Amino acid sequence: MGTPVKPSRRQLFGYAGAAAAGAAVTGAATVALDKQPPPASRLISPYGDRQPGVAASSPRHGELVAFNLKPGTDKAALGRLMRLWSANVVALGNGQPAPGDTAPELATANTALTTTVGFGARVFELAGNKPAAPDDLPVMRHDRLQDEWSGGDLLILVGADDELSVVHAVRRFVADAKPFAVPAWRQTGFWNSTGPDGKPVTGRNLFGQVDGTGNPAVGTPEFDATVWAADGSTTLVVRRIKLNLDTWDERTRSEQERAIGRKLSTGAPLTGTAEHDELDLEARDAEGRPVIAANAHARLSHHSENDGRRIFRKGLNYVHDSGTTRESGLIFLSYQADIAGQFLPLLARLDAADALNEWTTTIGSAVFAIPPGFQPGGWLGQKVLG
Amino acid sequence: MGTPVKPSRRQLFGYAGAAAAGAAVTGAATVALDKQPPPASRLISPYGDRQPGVAASSPRHGELVAFNLKPGTDKAALGRLMRLWSANVVALGNGQPAPGDTAPELATANTALTTTVGFGARVFELAGNKPAAPDDLPVMRHDRLQDEWSGGDLLILVGADDELSVVHAVRRFVADAKPFAVPAWRQTGFWNSTGPDGKPVTGRNLFGQVDGTGNPAVGTPEFDATVWAADGSTTLVVRRIKLNLDTWDERTRSEQERAIGRKLSTGAPLTGTAEHDELDLEARDAEGRPVIAANAHARLSHHSENDGRRIFRKGLNYVHDSGTTRESGLIFLSYQADIAGQFLPLLARLDAADALNEWTTTIGSAVFAIPPGFQPGGWLGQKVLG
Ligand code: HEM
Ligand code: HEM
Repeated sequence: MGTPVKPSRRQLFGYAGAAAAGAAVTGAATVALDKQPPPASRLISPYGDRQPGVAASSPRHGELVAFNLKPGTDKAALGRLMRLWSANVVALGNGQPAPGDTAPELATANTALTTTVGFGARVFELAGNKPAAPDDLPVMRHDRLQDEWSGGDLLILVGADDELSVVHAVRRFVADAKPFAVPAWRQTGFWNSTGPDGKPVTGRNLFGQVDGTGNPAVGTPEFDATVWAADGSTTLVVRRIKLNLDTWDERTRSEQERAIGRKLSTGAPLTGTAEHDELDLEARDAEGRPVIAANAHARLSHHSENDGRRIFRKGLNYVHDSGTTRESGLIFLSYQADIAGQFLPLLARLDAADALNEWTTTIGSAVFAIPPGFQPGGWLGQKVLG
Repeated sequence: MGTPVKPSRRQLFGYAGAAAAGAAVTGAATVALDKQPPPASRLISPYGDRQPGVAASSPRHGELVAFNLKPGTDKAALGRLMRLWSANVVALGNGQPAPGDTAPELATANTALTTTVGFGARVFELAGNKPAAPDDLPVMRHDRLQDEWSGGDLLILVGADDELSVVHAVRRFVADAKPFAVPAWRQTGFWNSTGPDGKPVTGRNLFGQVDGTGNPAVGTPEFDATVWAADGSTTLVVRRIKLNLDTWDERTRSEQERAIGRKLSTGAPLTGTAEHDELDLEARDAEGRPVIAANAHARLSHHSENDGRRIFRKGLNYVHDSGTTRESGLIFLSYQADIAGQFLPLLARLDAADALNEWTTTIGSAVFAIPPGFQPGGWLGQKVLG
């Protein structure tokens, strides 16, 4: 969290401006929005050594757009796009219209809007650098990957309290990208990270499970060691995971709880009573069977069973309608300093044995390096593309 | 608004319960949710002489599902479905799990959830009654109606502060309908009816316009005369209207404002300074032209130009992705006591001359009678189907 900063557009642009990049400007006269400065509490400063959306609590609404670079987009062009996007990140994050905004009134203050930008392997190739993340993940036995939800050279992930702000912001990023890159896929999702009383909660996925408990707590050394590389970068894995709610619903609550190893009511381990109680992986029931089953998701993914390996997960629930058929699922997002060292062993282990596999199918997969944040005068990706 | 009421399930069911209607119950053991009673301010009592969702302020998230009746569904079966749905309306509206809820923890208190139920003409036919609303509207010259967004025998419209509550509630209604009716279409949308400071605002559509100013104010005699028939029923017109944001964005702000006759900044009439200033339809500029143009949307639709005819509009913004292509639009919802007397003349007039027609295309259309509300012990549609 930080103080509202009114960005200088010139400062960030450093060249002729949005028009040169093809942004529509005809309807875009700058308007005095006549707004109160937003209460600082819902404004997340867009600046910093690390992109602030990563550690921010899950947004109520999130949208991810992956892009493929157009053939003519070289390193210099990408640098221009990143300056444009950085200006958007700042303005929209401050609840202000983006430069060249054609619907400036839709930029709303106080919605905790963040934009996280990611780079696929091709960006590093173009820049003549070693990729900071693998191009994609090995395909797992249970994966049923579809091209339409996979891959991408660039990513934006916009999150905010309300969908209108997200939709408006995404429109600006997509419009500014037009000369450089075309959307490869779009995913929209939602998450409740506050309870009915307005207090923070972990939130639930569409299976009804409390999801996120095992995460390292933001601000702890453990979190920093899990997520951040020394330069303030990290990596993001995006998995689109279809949940079969119909067959899940056919199970009893105790079968559902056994599959995960935690209670549906509170998210507490089956060996405990409160959400954040430590898992007791040794505990046995009267018949001598492990209380938290051998194939329970929370056991298989727990750090103590994975040589201390951790990741930072931030899911978004999704529903996707084709005609009258609704698909429900989880946009699984995982941040970690090192995909090969932290994420992959975990993924392989779950693919081999996870009880949840019965009801889940991964249909999309993508990997992005999340470059460090930037300060006033700088821009996103400057180290790679500058 | 009302006091939280814990409904007796038996009271509403009056027969063997959800299982008999095919609702999945295996995973549905009743659980004590251990929740604080929600602050009364965000709970909208599900009971009343009129369905409460109609006059409630626009929900942040809304979903509409239209259903077609299965061939075997007769009047008695429909009555059974309405008892089931009524129990859901009450429980979910009170932030409680629905009867037979397979994910009871996803029922969240304090999200201002309302469900509005509507009947197509076929329901009245089945019941041997005269339809309270026409089957559909005459096709307008600018309409490009698609079957996939049109018609339907039954409707639910669920609105709440958060998408998870909406998605969960809709799942219950669809599951309970399964033996009786199948989804014909689904539409999801969003609206901001509070500003950054949490105070109520009119809200904006995706053109960036303040949309809803001209509505009769809830609670006034004018509102009641516009919306309610004597028995507490009303009618709902649902129009799915595609907005061409690309060509709209090519226009200057003053062209955009001329098309509507109001300012983008505040929604004030071009002849005024504050949102709720009365339109001055006689005012002329220095060159003698009307300040609010002859084809301006706000002029053509204003009650003083329509023999005093009014409607009550409650839009939801939508975005709809097919692959990487995003369609943006407005789920236009209009409530009125009498479609033929109030809505149709207005629609025909706008179709003939509205400046907005250049950027808007109606791709779906449906009409529903909204039966009166119900009290504890009663159920929705009891007068028609009981
Ligand atoms: C298939 C969809 C998935 C669902 C529905 C799901 C759900 C859950 C739930 C409910 C928990 C327990 C609460 C918590 O600690 O957050 C959990 C824990 C966890 N999951 Fe998943 N998960 C899914 C996929 C994955 C995948 C693909 C990975 C990584 C490859 C993963 C890694 C983890 C980790 C690391 C934990 C924390 C374990 C601990 O430290 O106690 N999950 N998941
Ligand atoms: C095509 C998409 C439409 C858009 C974007 C739109 C937008 C607007 C806007 C911005 C206003 C002015 C502010 C206000 O009074 O709310 C307005 C007013 C109004 N519109 Fe629409 N509208 C649309 C379609 C329709 C349709 C289909 C009807 C009815 C057939 C309608 C009826 C009205 C009425 C009655 C008013 C209030 C006029 C007054 O009393 O001042 N609109 N609309």
